[in-house]
Amino acid sequence: MRIYGDLVSGNCLKVKWTCDHLRLAYEWVDIDIMQSESRTPVFLAKNPFGQVPVVAFDDGRHLAQSNAIVLYLADGSDLVPADPFLRAKVLEWMFWEQYSHEPYVAVCRFQMKYQGKRADERDPDKVARGVNALETLENALADQPFLVGSELSAADIALVAYTRVAEEGGFDLSGFPHVRSWIGNCDTVLKLSE
Amino acid sequence: MRIYGDLVSGNCLKVKWTCDHLRLAYEWVDIDIMQSESRTPVFLAKNPFGQVPVVAFDDGRHLAQSNAIVLYLADGSDLVPADPFLRAKVLEWMFWEQYSHEPYVAVCRFQMKYQGKRADERDPDKVARGVNALETLENALADQPFLVGSELSAADIALVAYTRVAEEGGFDLSGFPHVRSWIGNCDTVLKLSE
Repeated sequence: MRIYGDLVSGNCLKVKWTCDHLRLAYEWVDIDIMQSESRTPVFLAKNPFGQVPVVAFDDGRHLAQSNAIVLYLADGSDLVPADPFLRAKVLEWMFWEQYSHEPYVAVCRFQMKYQGKRADERDPDKVARGVNALETLENALADQPFLVGSELSAADIALVAYTRVAEEGGFDLSGFPHVRSWIGNCDTVLKLSE
Repeated sequence: MRIYGDLVSGNCLKVKWTCDHLRLAYEWVDIDIMQSESRTPVFLAKNPFGQVPVVAFDDGRHLAQSNAIVLYLADGSDLVPADPFLRAKVLEWMFWEQYSHEPYVAVCRFQMKYQGKRADERDPDKVARGVNALETLENALADQPFLVGSELSAADIALVAYTRVAEEGGFDLSGFPHVRSWIGNCDTVLKLSE
């Protein structure tokens, strides 16, 4: 299995972390998104969406969309609950992540860290929606160590990818103690600080 | 089962169509999003995300996020392939829908149909990204009647909800013949024109 990705992208890290946690063998192929390497004809043949990550399996098939890849690779593992309703709650968080979290938290971070914007140059609407996403996480994590059930799941991998670097996008996490504890919980299980 | 939704929302229609297709019994509870009924404290207790649709099951549990609901209700049916890789391709399309299609095609339609904007008042970036999404669909549907495999799946339900009303958002579908054929295929199976 080959993972085409860029380590600056939280979406790509989700796939890497899932493989590392589940001890799945893979070859990592660097795609420099800052140089538009995800837009070349060769890459577009692998992923018509023109986005990273994309995974190429040994039989020649490809799969894109970080959260779809994570769920496929983690199917049957401890990252995806066997109970159908809990599995649906994992999906609920993962769809929410792509619609209501990533477009604000990750985009602000991209603009500041890679495009050189200052915090006060960010789009105020994106900032407000990013704060709102962090508040939703803070409330959800007030009484539990992970987003779904008592163990780390694919939902945590999807959400922690950009939340743990939210401060690079100008979001102050000091007012979100439950979010910070949860980031620590995820880091411990995924061994991200080693 | 109760579905809280607004029939002007394609995200809500996805859930309704899934139930109707699978002959699942439900009670429909109208939530007027134009009157912010999805933001009241009573509604937020059901869905902290403050969005429709949300489904309340008879045991008191709730599930939000249209695509998570569709996949949960359709689990084990002909709408979700049994083959793990094809199931992953269904998810790939559904995550793409929420990130790269709905925020452009649905939002332009909302602004024109419900907020009174003219086509030339739409955000040019949203228009360009909406056209790009339609082109991605057109290419994918050039050689096949549905998005994944030879039968209608949850991916088609997710994508057709706003694509079939894209012209209400100022998108001209005349240059997308495969998309128009596919909308017809979906309408036939889901009996949307009856």
